[in-house]
This record gives sequence, structure tokens and C-alpha cells, in this order.
Amino acid sequence: MPRISTIDLATTAGAYYAPATVAPANTQMMHIAGQPGSTKSGLVPPDYESQIHLALLNLRKILIVAGAAVRDIVKLTVYIVNYDPTRRLHTRHLQKFLAGHRPAMTLVPVTQLAAPGWLFEVDAVVARPAALAPVPRLLAGELAHHPIVDVLIVGAGLAGLMAASEVQQAGLSYTILEARDRVGGKTWSQPMGQEGEGEGGLVDLGAAWINDTNQRTAYALARRFGAEILEQNTSGLCVIEDADGVCSPFAYGSVPKFSDSISSDIARIRDMVEADCHTIDPARPQNPELDSLTFEAYLRSRGASDEALATATVWTRAMLGQDPRDLSALFFLTYCKSGGGLMQMRSDRKGGGQHLRARQGMQMIAKGLADELPEAVIRLSTPVSAIDNNSGGDGQVEVTTTTGEVFRARKVISTVPSPVLDTISFQPKLPPVKQLWAQSTSYGYYTKAMMVFRSPFWVQKGYCGLTQSFRGPAAVIRDTSSVPDGKYILTCFLTGDPGREWAALSTKAREEALVQQIGKLFGAELEATRDFVQMVTYEWVHDAYSGWGCPCPALAPGVLDTLGGGGIREPCGSVHFAGTETAVEWRGYMEGALQSGQRAAGEVIQALRSGVPARL
Amino acid sequence: MPRISTIDLATTAGAYYAPATVAPANTQMMHIAGQPGSTKSGLVPPDYESQIHLALLNLRKILIVAGAAVRDIVKLTVYIVNYDPTRRLHTRHLQKFLAGHRPAMTLVPVTQLAAPGWLFEVDAVVARPAALAPVPRLLAGELAHHPIVDVLIVGAGLAGLMAASEVQQAGLSYTILEARDRVGGKTWSQPMGQEGEGEGGLVDLGAAWINDTNQRTAYALARRFGAEILEQNTSGLCVIEDADGVCSPFAYGSVPKFSDSISSDIARIRDMVEADCHTIDPARPQNPELDSLTFEAYLRSRGASDEALATATVWTRAMLGQDPRDLSALFFLTYCKSGGGLMQMRSDRKGGGQHLRARQGMQMIAKGLADELPEAVIRLSTPVSAIDNNSGGDGQVEVTTTTGEVFRARKVISTVPSPVLDTISFQPKLPPVKQLWAQSTSYGYYTKAMMVFRSPFWVQKGYCGLTQSFRGPAAVIRDTSSVPDGKYILTCFLTGDPGREWAALSTKAREEALVQQIGKLFGAELEATRDFVQMVTYEWVHDAYSGWGCPCPALAPGVLDTLGGGGIREPCGSVHFAGTETAVEWRGYMEGALQSGQRAAGEVIQALRSGVPARL
Repeated sequence: MPRISTIDLATTAGAYYAPATVAPANTQMMHIAGQPGSTKSGLVPPDYESQIHLALLNLRKILIVAGAAVRDIVKLTVYIVNYDPTRRLHTRHLQKFLAGHRPAMTLVPVTQLAAPGWLFEVDAVVARPAALAPVPRLLAGELAHHPIVDVLIVGAGLAGLMAASEVQQAGLSYTILEARDRVGGKTWSQPMGQEGEGEGGLVDLGAAWINDTNQRTAYALARRFGAEILEQNTSGLCVIEDADGVCSPFAYGSVPKFSDSISSDIARIRDMVEADCHTIDPARPQNPELDSLTFEAYLRSRGASDEALATATVWTRAMLGQDPRDLSALFFLTYCKSGGGLMQMRSDRKGGGQHLRARQGMQMIAKGLADELPEAVIRLSTPVSAIDNNSGGDGQVEVTTTTGEVFRARKVISTVPSPVLDTISFQPKLPPVKQLWAQSTSYGYYTKAMMVFRSPFWVQKGYCGLTQSFRGPAAVIRDTSSVPDGKYILTCFLTGDPGREWAALSTKAREEALVQQIGKLFGAELEATRDFVQMVTYEWVHDAYSGWGCPCPALAPGVLDTLGGGGIREPCGSVHFAGTETAVEWRGYMEGALQSGQRAAGEVIQALRSGVPARL
Repeated sequence: MPRISTIDLATTAGAYYAPATVAPANTQMMHIAGQPGSTKSGLVPPDYESQIHLALLNLRKILIVAGAAVRDIVKLTVYIVNYDPTRRLHTRHLQKFLAGHRPAMTLVPVTQLAAPGWLFEVDAVVARPAALAPVPRLLAGELAHHPIVDVLIVGAGLAGLMAASEVQQAGLSYTILEARDRVGGKTWSQPMGQEGEGEGGLVDLGAAWINDTNQRTAYALARRFGAEILEQNTSGLCVIEDADGVCSPFAYGSVPKFSDSISSDIARIRDMVEADCHTIDPARPQNPELDSLTFEAYLRSRGASDEALATATVWTRAMLGQDPRDLSALFFLTYCKSGGGLMQMRSDRKGGGQHLRARQGMQMIAKGLADELPEAVIRLSTPVSAIDNNSGGDGQVEVTTTTGEVFRARKVISTVPSPVLDTISFQPKLPPVKQLWAQSTSYGYYTKAMMVFRSPFWVQKGYCGLTQSFRGPAAVIRDTSSVPDGKYILTCFLTGDPGREWAALSTKAREEALVQQIGKLFGAELEATRDFVQMVTYEWVHDAYSGWGCPCPALAPGVLDTLGGGGIREPCGSVHFAGTETAVEWRGYMEGALQSGQRAAGEVIQALRSGVPARL
């Protein structure tokens, strides 16, 4: 329900801000002082774009503390030092911050701001809704009440199912509420089968890879449920496509061939990121300076060349769907570290993040776990709408669903992705840092397009199928064939800005763009066109229950610093938090999801046994 | 009823803005985004002052669309690039825009604005009155209701009387509502007669000249009603007073003698304006580039010298009471074109705008027309307060007067000057473009002071009486003697900024200033002082029923472009618009008023005959 109305002229409706806004009468007008791009301790990074992130974060913090929201902003004024009208970097971040809300806005270029080094400042006028009338509860008789259980688990993805498995073993009672009509969350395996093209084989629309070295939880479960393991092919050549579209082969694991100075700079930057990430404790990442910078600003401050930045852009796009200017440097380094480092996380070989697949598709783990639980503990198609934490004053939680049911539990484990938290009505409200997390976390653009071909023509030409591109549409391509099923597949990772552009095309144009890129990368235009069978894809960006994205929500500068080292995992009252983004190891991966479920279950089991409520 | 109150200190009451403003409770706070000086299609003229006009126009547009008014503004912030504190050009235009309303205000000099070329931006906070309670209608019994007529004509000036004459001939029923206690509108002839100085003769306080060549409607009526025609004297020398006060004679129709280069530049600019105005269709003026500029900016952009600009200033002042920086270039060129071109409109000779007068005074035309109408169709002293357009849903209009009467008609012809439209309560509101017209149209300063002398000493010295001055107080003087009455008169045109300064003097000081200027111009200080009898003048600027000015409202940049070519004449529902400012030929003249009345009557007669309501 929009509270602020906009005034538009015939020509203005397309702008991301409005010519004028009208606050309803009887709202409280709130004026927000100029917010600079500083961290909570006052650190001001030298980088302009990092300051934009931090200033908007500071604005968001004030809104949260005031009980207001971005949609309550009636006017924004931004002050910019050294403003360059040909390079309006602020619009990207403001549009993301506003998320479709359109306040009135004025941009004021200035020669300096209140303190040396401030490059960006934003102030705002906000129409804070007057104290909201209490939401009318449905009459008790209209809601189906369920008996109290020890643990209520929200989400039947890998984290939720793993937590259920642990809780079950501990002998506690529990229920799992799952919004979707299936288990598995962001693992989802779809059988292929097109008339006349032969049936058999599955594609993973979501998570696909595990390894047998340092992802023991995931690997053990896959084996337990009978996975036929497929190893990633890394024996042929890889291909790099540079910013000008020139394609060059290179050996797996080597730096692509640019000029000597560029190649050595790429290697230097790669090694620096590798070394820097290993200085971080992924359980308690704390480095205000690194968290004050975007990953791009961090790289630039270390003298990264354009090609090194383009290379790093391939990393962030392929790993998170994000561009380096949208990520906190500390967040990205922590993410790498959680997977054992940049090199290991990016690797397709033994111990790497993309080493092994399962012929049956990776949803098999979730299905296997679910099959081991008793009947009826999993309630499918039951989205949660509200969580009343400590409703009875005795730590008991009441969870209401959109289906009109009330579930009661001593403990709740939420496994929903952080953007989903913002769609659930918490009573009392989540603490400010948790609200900040839920509001400022975001996915990039990340879609896998599985391109099915009649033959593995790239293998026949001596390629392993792995490619990188500085221009796209696909940033990275990997061979995800299932040879036992006779299915030859290149999985294209459409990510970041080039992915968004690709997504704006028609389905036919999307297919053509990828067939063309594949043909060019492997010098096989003829074969790619001739052997193309079909494209299989799923747009997680439209999936509300994943939080509108995939594989893992990420954080811009300043959020980790505000949350504090382990803040993401802090329980609130009787509500505990799991999900792959809360993992210490292999965050964003299936392994991380499973471990987060174990960890949250452990917290809950311990608290219920000790009888002491978790601290608020 | 002022809705915004101001907070003042002892020293601040004289400022055009207030130290603080207070919005009443229960208003909706509206925030307006920074408005640059661009046209509706986004054109940004290179000229600073033109941008000020356009930015304020854009602000006004938003106010209109929002249902708010200038008097609802509580705070203005203006942003100025290359601000020069010794040349505060914005104050003139802001003061005119605010029209006495005093918001709080901050001026922020900046080095640039959001887009290249933007030199001025304004944003605002507005306290929009909450949805107004419907105006309580007087009880039916308190209002005198009149039977329905075919046509109700608002205004018994030349346009209204001419329309009535046509409607009468078409056999339709009608009533004329006139606010004043006389007919004639901006034609008003006053008998002279001072004890001991001899009686007889009239002076025209308003419009005075017609011609017998291309003003056939006015001339035919004057002859029909028995006018004794007086021809303007152009046989002697003219005088020019330059910016330093040096007076030089020159032959009528020639360019005054400056240095050769200056004289040729003046001739060049004059010829350019003449040529440019002939490229315009006065019925549908459309040229966004010319309408984005002030007339001054247009002249400067064509390399006009200071003297050429001063000459052009004499034109705009004598023709409209305006300075070139207050007028849209397109508007002024259209105005010239409507009178057959700059040269013809300014001419006192055959075919020119100031060729013939009537010994009886020009109000005789209005009186003659009124005398031909039946008794009682003209209701004097009956100002209109409200027009309810389509009150019954069947196209019927209800017109309420300040005298507590309700008139009903199938059609209404409004002949009031556009500023008066803004004082009438329309139900439903006029469409946004008509509101914009009514709110942004304005007169300059324009007062005729008739200086009566005992002898025509200027004629005796070889002058025709026509003078121009770059400094004032009178920009132009013309001989308006009535030789048959033995009355020797110089009519001084007090216009624009020098006119406003003169108006601030006492009556005695005004007289002295003009006697002194006349003495100097004609080298006749002695005679002017000795033979001065009296000054007769009327300040149209205080006349609410003329819309606070004379002879014709004018438009600043951007308005014509927004109205569209013929937008001024578009009817709204059953209300049609006449008045000299709507004329295609001789706009601002009696001929234009008469023709506009004919045109509007034609629209109404045709619509009533066809039975099809005019399109909304």
C-alpha cells in the first residue's frame, strides 16, 4: 500500500524519481541530516562509489531506527563533489536503493562537503506513517491452530531438511513449513525429454556441484542416496573472450595470454585476493577498512589494470551474479575464504567448488533427506506470513501462514534467504541490525541457461568447455553433459549487467545470442547452429521464495561492519537463522546450507535442553 | 485567505521572502524535485534568464497538476551556476512569480547542475491544502435565478459587445454581464474641462488609435457612430534621447543618428525582427526554440548591440509595457505579426497602429454598439464569481455573480483578460493548460499620462511630437492634441521599469518629471513649464477588471509552447474565449478585440445550431 503519491507530467512517468510527491495529511514529517559515506566508526573510504553505498546504508539505518521505510521518502537531495554529468554513477545505486519508489529529488554538485574526503552526501525528507493501527487479527475461530512443537522449521531446502534431521535425532518434536510445492529450495532438478530427441538425463536449474574433499556433508549425503557421480571435464583447453571479442585458448589453471605485463598483473591481483582472503576469519569477518570499499575500489586501490578488473568481474559475476562495484570487498573476500579461497572456490578440479555432479541431479539430496523424515512433518505450499516471537512471554513463538493456520513452537529455525525475511511480519520487529541485513542484502543477476546439443563438438575440437568472457552475454560457460544419458550440454552463466541485457531479449533472441557466442568461443559456428537442440533455463530472479535470486545474497559496503563479525547468525529471541548465506564454510553452496542447518539445530537443541532461552 | 503564515523579525518584513513560514495543520506536504529551465520537450536554451522563466514555468505546471498554488509554497531553494551577487537577475522573476507571496527561501550558488547547460534550478516545499470541502452553496432561496438564455457573455468591452451584436443578429437570446458600471472595457474616454482653462475635448485613458486600411471592423464602426477622425501628426521631426540623456532630432521613419556602425546595427536588428515575425503563423505560432528564449536573449544571440537592444526595449515598452527580458521571443514576434509586422504595428502613418483617433474618444464604439442592443441585456456592475461548466450534465452553464445572482446559459463567451480568469472559480477546474495560461500571463507596466499644454510649442519648433527615450521616464511621447477643441496634449507612455519608478513618485513629482523630460526633448524647458495645464492619467495597473494592466497580457518563455499553436482559443466545455489577446489579427488592439468577439460568437452560433457540444 503506497502511502506517498506522486505528481507526474505527461513526460515524466518513466523517470526513477518523481517531479513531486505528496505525503498524506497526518503523517509525521521526518528530516534526515546529510548522510556521508562513512562507516559506523567514521571511516571514510577514498573511493566515490564506495561512499555512495555507505551513505545510502546510513540513510537506511536511520529509516530503520525511526520505524520508517524507503517507500516513505518524499524527497531526496544528493550532494556530489566533482560531479561528472557524463558519468552518473549514483543513478545505479539510487535506483537499487529506491527499488521502484519514486521520491522527488534534487542533485546538487558541490566543490566540497562538510569534512575533507567526503565525496557524496544524501539528505532526505520522510513522511513517517503515524503510529499504525494494530493489524486486525483474524478472529481466533477463523484460524486453524496446531499443537505446540519443540521446533518449527521454516523452509524445506537443504538447511531446513538438515536441521530437521538433527532435531529428529535429538528426539524433539518439529514441523517444517515450506512455501513451495516441493522440497529442495535452490536445488531443483528437472528431467529432460523432448520428443524425437531422446529422453533421459536431468538438468540442475539450481545448485549443481559438490566435491569429495572438503564438502564432506554434501558428498556423504549424495553417496548415501545413491548418486552416480559425474566429474567435471578439465582436460581440454579453456577459452577467454576479451573486451573486444577476441577469443584465445588457454590451458586450464593458467592465466590467459595477454601481453606479459597484463598477464603478470592479472596473476598479481589474483594472488593478492587469494592471500588477502586467507587473512580473514570467515566466522567473524572484521575489517572496517575492507568493508568500507567496494571490491572494485579495493582492486583499483591496489593498482589493478583494466584487464585484471575485467578478470575479477568474471569472478564476481560467475560466483554471485554481481559486479565488483556492487560488492563490499570484505564480503567478497569472506565469501572466497568460506570456500577455502578464491582459487579453490573457482576450481573445477579436486577440492574445487565445481568438481562433481550427480547424474540424478542434486535435488536428490533434499529428496533423500525428506524421505527419511516421518510422514506429514513437512507442510508443502504453506508460506509463512508472520512470526510472533515470544507471543506468550514465555519464549513461545506463534507462526501464522498465508493459508490461515497458526503453528506454535518453543523454537523457530528460519532458513529463508535474507531478502525473504523482509516479507515476513515479525512481532516484535526484528532488531535493527537484522532489519538492516534483510533490507540491504541482495542478489545480483544470475541465470543458468543449459544449452543442449546433439554432439559435444567442443570436446571434439580439444576444448574442455570452460570459457570466460569479458563481454558476455555468458560470463562463464561450463560443460554439464551427462555422457551416460547421451546429453551434451553447455551451461551458460548469464550474470551481472550483461546478463540483465540478455534477459531483456525474447526467448528466441536469447537462444541465438548464446548459440552465436558458443560458436565463436569454440570456433564452431557451424556445429553450434547445426547441433543446437534446446535451451533449458529458470529465472530465479522472479522467484519470491528464493528471495528473487540465486545463488547467494551479497552485501554492499558497510553492512558486515554494522552486523559485527557473527551478527548474521545471532538468534533473535526464540528465532534462529540458518541458510547457506549464514554458513562459515562454503557459503552460497549446498555444503554451506547443510552445515548451517546442523549449526542452527545444534543451537536449538542445546537451548531446549538447558531450558535457558537464547539471549535476546 | 492566506493559508501560509510567515514569521518575521523587525528587519525582515520588507524582503520578498520570509525568514520562516508556517504551514497550517492538516495540510499535505508536497516536495517538488529540482526543476531546470527546460521546455516541455527538454530543450534547454543557452540563456540564463530564459532558463529562469522556464524553470519557474515548470514549477508552476507541477503546482497546477497537483491542485496547489504559488501561495501554498512554504520553501523555495534556488540553485544558480556562475552566480554573480552584483547581478541578481533571478529576483525580478521570482518576485513576479511569487506575486507578493513570501515563502522561506535559500539561494545556493553552485558550479554546475545535474545536466550540462543547466544554469538555474529551483525546488520547493508546498503545503497543499487537504481536499477542499465543497464550497457551501448559498441556499437556493438566497440567490436570484434568471431564466436560461442561449448565450451568456462575460464582459461588455469591445469583444463582448461585438459578440452580442452577432448573437443578436443570429436570433439567439443572450445576456451580457459587465463588472464595471460602464461599457467599453479598456476603451474609456474622459471629458476634459478644468475651470478657467476652457472646456471641451476628451482624452482616451485607454485605447486610442485605429486605421482605415487594415482595421476595417473598428474603422467602419467608428464611422457608423459618427467619429470625427483626427490624423496623427508625423510631418515634423522626431526626437531620440539616448541612455546618457543626449537628445537628437531625426526624421520620422528614419533610424536615429548614432555612429554609422550603431545605426546600421539597429537597422539590421529591426529588419531581422521584421523578417522573422513574418515567418510566423499568428493563428498557430509554433517554434519551441524561439519560445525557449526571452526576446532579449534572442536579440543578444543575433549579436544585437547595446543600442539595438535599447531600441528594441523602446518597442516592447511602448507596445506592451514589458522589457525584452520578460517576454518570450516567439510571443513578441507573434504579437508583431498579428499587427502586420513590427514596422506597421509601430507606425503612425497610413495602415499603422497609431494612425487615426476620434475627436469623441474611442469609447464611442462601445457606446454605439451598446446603444444598438435592446434594453436590459447588459447588466452593469455585475462581476462574475463562479462558472459552473456543464452543471446539469447537458452542457448547460451556471454563472454566479458577486451580486448573488445565478444566470444560466447554453453557452458562455468569456471576454475577460486572461489574468481575470484566475479570479473566477471554475467548476470543474479549467484544464491544466488553461490554468497555466491564466496564471502565467501578465501585463507589463503601462500608463498613459496625458500632458495638457496651453500651446503646441513643439509644433512651433518643427517637431511632430513623437519621441523615444532609452532612459525615460516616458519611453515614447505622442501628440494627441484635439485642434478642433483647442486642446494641446502630449501623451507620455510610462512603461516598463522606468515607468514603475515614475509611478512610485508623488503626483507632483510625476508631473515635474514629465514636464522636465518634455522640455529637454524639444529644447523647450521654458515653454513646457510655462504652458503646462494639467496631467490626466489612469493607472490600469490597479484595475482588477482589466486584469491589472493594459493594453494586452503577454507571455514569458515556454507558455506558448505548452499551450500549443491555437490553444488560447480552444473552448472548454461550453465556455468559449474571446478578448483582444485571443485575436489572430491586431492582437492587443481594438480591432483584435472586435474580431475576437465575432470569432467566438461564430463558434457559439454554429455549435448551438448543430446541437453538438464543443469538444472538451
